[in-house]
Amino acid sequence: MITQTLVHNCLNTKWEDIPQEVIQHAKKSILNWMGVAVGAAYHPSVDMLLSLKEDLQSTEQVSIFGRKEKADILFSSLINGMSSHIFDYDDTHLDTIHHPSGPVAPVCFALAEKYGLSGKQVLRAFILGVEAELRISNAVYPSHYHLGWHITSTAGVFGSAIAAGILLELNEEQMLYALGIAGTQAFGLREMFGTMTKPFHPGKAAENGLLAALLAQKGFTSSKQVLEAKRGFANVLAPEHDLDKVNVNWGTQWETLKNAFKPYACGIVLHPAIDACIALGKKVADPALVKEIEITVNPYVLELTGKPEPQTGLEGKFSIYHTGAIAFLDGDASEEQYQDAKVLDPRTIEFRNKIKPVVNEAFEEDECAAKLTTVDGNVIEYRVKHATGSIENPMTDEMLCSKFRNLVKGILDSENTETIIQKLYELDSVEDINEIIPYCTQSKVSA
Amino acid sequence: MITQTLVHNCLNTKWEDIPQEVIQHAKKSILNWMGVAVGAAYHPSVDMLLSLKEDLQSTEQVSIFGRKEKADILFSSLINGMSSHIFDYDDTHLDTIHHPSGPVAPVCFALAEKYGLSGKQVLRAFILGVEAELRISNAVYPSHYHLGWHITSTAGVFGSAIAAGILLELNEEQMLYALGIAGTQAFGLREMFGTMTKPFHPGKAAENGLLAALLAQKGFTSSKQVLEAKRGFANVLAPEHDLDKVNVNWGTQWETLKNAFKPYACGIVLHPAIDACIALGKKVADPALVKEIEITVNPYVLELTGKPEPQTGLEGKFSIYHTGAIAFLDGDASEEQYQDAKVLDPRTIEFRNKIKPVVNEAFEEDECAAKLTTVDGNVIEYRVKHATGSIENPMTDEMLCSKFRNLVKGILDSENTETIIQKLYELDSVEDINEIIPYCTQSKVSA
Repeated sequence: MITQTLVHNCLNTKWEDIPQEVIQHAKKSILNWMGVAVGAAYHPSVDMLLSLKEDLQSTEQVSIFGRKEKADILFSSLINGMSSHIFDYDDTHLDTIHHPSGPVAPVCFALAEKYGLSGKQVLRAFILGVEAELRISNAVYPSHYHLGWHITSTAGVFGSAIAAGILLELNEEQMLYALGIAGTQAFGLREMFGTMTKPFHPGKAAENGLLAALLAQKGFTSSKQVLEAKRGFANVLAPEHDLDKVNVNWGTQWETLKNAFKPYACGIVLHPAIDACIALGKKVADPALVKEIEITVNPYVLELTGKPEPQTGLEGKFSIYHTGAIAFLDGDASEEQYQDAKVLDPRTIEFRNKIKPVVNEAFEEDECAAKLTTVDGNVIEYRVKHATGSIENPMTDEMLCSKFRNLVKGILDSENTETIIQKLYELDSVEDINEIIPYCTQSKVSA
Repeated sequence: MITQTLVHNCLNTKWEDIPQEVIQHAKKSILNWMGVAVGAAYHPSVDMLLSLKEDLQSTEQVSIFGRKEKADILFSSLINGMSSHIFDYDDTHLDTIHHPSGPVAPVCFALAEKYGLSGKQVLRAFILGVEAELRISNAVYPSHYHLGWHITSTAGVFGSAIAAGILLELNEEQMLYALGIAGTQAFGLREMFGTMTKPFHPGKAAENGLLAALLAQKGFTSSKQVLEAKRGFANVLAPEHDLDKVNVNWGTQWETLKNAFKPYACGIVLHPAIDACIALGKKVADPALVKEIEITVNPYVLELTGKPEPQTGLEGKFSIYHTGAIAFLDGDASEEQYQDAKVLDPRTIEFRNKIKPVVNEAFEEDECAAKLTTVDGNVIEYRVKHATGSIENPMTDEMLCSKFRNLVKGILDSENTETIIQKLYELDSVEDINEIIPYCTQSKVSA
């Protein structure tokens, strides 16, 4: 009955049942998602998918964000979902390391654009899709993730199907079938991390979930108990699981509220060190005055990010040395700070040699202590208890908007950028999503 | 190195390296596959996918077998792969219960039609795709299957990617990436058996594998060790596995030769009983003379097929009572004998009450002993050591052609039917697959 109860819960959660706090948080998730999707729209992997689309389809239906091209709703969901995960800069449900918007937001926008749906409809579908996928993640985490599954796509495909099913107005039986068709398509191996195939996962999960809902609408049959069946999702893909978590406290407890946004374009474990180095950079104007910065972190942080001499932007994301240096020098750690050129810049290299990580098991993963010693022997200390972007210390609206502006720079012009920010913050009063969409497609080619 | 060795083996197996026996067997596999694909082309689930295609795509590229419609190569692979598994009447690698043609043949035909490739190219790609997927199945069977994975799609996606990669002339690195992109998309829960989602699996595996090869051709990156990596296919999807089986005796031992064809449109465990009842039906002309037929089988057979009063054609496939009756009465057990009307026919019902199954643990699953007792008290016995369609007792060419004719009846006219049979038997001398394709699309609508 787990699957059936979930479907029942989703279909019976009306707009009025969703707390304002959840709606506001969902708007931020969508703004954050749109920024990372547009920002990566010219990544080579997106070009590859688009050129494949040109080979295959003459159809144009809905938008690919940050681009001029369009595609059918399945293909555009694949591309928009993929691009939003390329920078590893999208939202994160910290309890399960699940990035919830990637598989869900693309299908909401694709269907809304095609059928001229309202902002409220998009928000409700998005919130219920995210809520469902995160609760499924809660039920199978951590054994599922540790076995090697990329939980963002495996659980995400359910979120995509729920969101699509809501917008397609599926009835209860159709929605059950949609979850069956979606869940049997759950896929994604963590072995793919570090390759273009990683961001392909949430994109394909979005596509698979949408396909499932479209087929269910046509009458395609499937299992009605995909989550709990003997040979269903949980038993086959998670050595240990607790399916009670799927429906517990539905309507009173919202996983959506635990969705966190990354202020920096690298793994979350580096965020405390970045906070500290940015703060220290504001206190010491001249880098030449710095002798060293000792950064004390949990041992796991250094295990993941101990690369002393990164050669590429991607490697830079796994280097506390590079990351500490650019945070101090630039006062930021966005995609710009992880360009290859920035990693190879002699100024960065000189400063990264001054970063001295120290491990201490007593430190949590989201805290750090930084101690800057000047060439004169002065000491400045800075302590981070919870990094920016954590649930305890979330990004402010100002930070979110600034992140969005940085991401879309060179792709969208500034007028469109401000329009999108405004309209997404007022999403629940947008009558037709097509009032927003045109602003989210390419207005200026990146230099 | 497992994945790399497999790729190396596939790319370096030239046409001349493939034994004639393997080529001949592959031709039969393709004929058998084409028959089951065309035969199910008007199933409601195919109509649903096609109507979805109409909603999404204006593109027409390659054929959907048995129909007039066309679709792009991805969509057509999905549909042709699905339709070929709808009747559960396709080929079977008995060692692993894997139906190898479904995920592989559609992409061979789609690419060959699009690019005008030769019969030899199709055969080589088909053989290497099937060989690769079956060896991967060998490596993970039985733990993978018992856990709940539909091995036909999970292992099949590799076969699809290999076949597509061969026809797209990928180099070694591209083929490695293709297997990575394909393998991370492995999916398919056995929970879906008995619903339209089951045949959807090999169709989607065909599509996913083809997409993987197309992306790899564009330069899309992935893992180069998807099979053996710590968080790769075998470790994540198979509690126990032996990856040495993937490459052992490559070029001297051919799994393709172990691909068996079903003479009857139901589960293999019923085939010995069908053989026996057909034989007895030829000996006793009047059903009214029969008092009972006692059929002795392995206990597992009755466990799977013990449904005494089936109400639908699909249930009839899981009933030794119905199956024994129609085999005796009609001398066959093809799709016609599993129509709902046939199951509910009073004549069938009367006779199925005379079928008396008996279990005996000493019997293998592919043998049975039947004892017919007439109303006069006469006894006629018939023993089946290996059912028709087993490796030991394969279907003859005549039987295969007859199966093909039965399947396509009402969809293809008889002239086209004979042309296809002839051309598929001469496939290695066909210069352009488009010499065959038009005959395989709808020539006459079913009554």
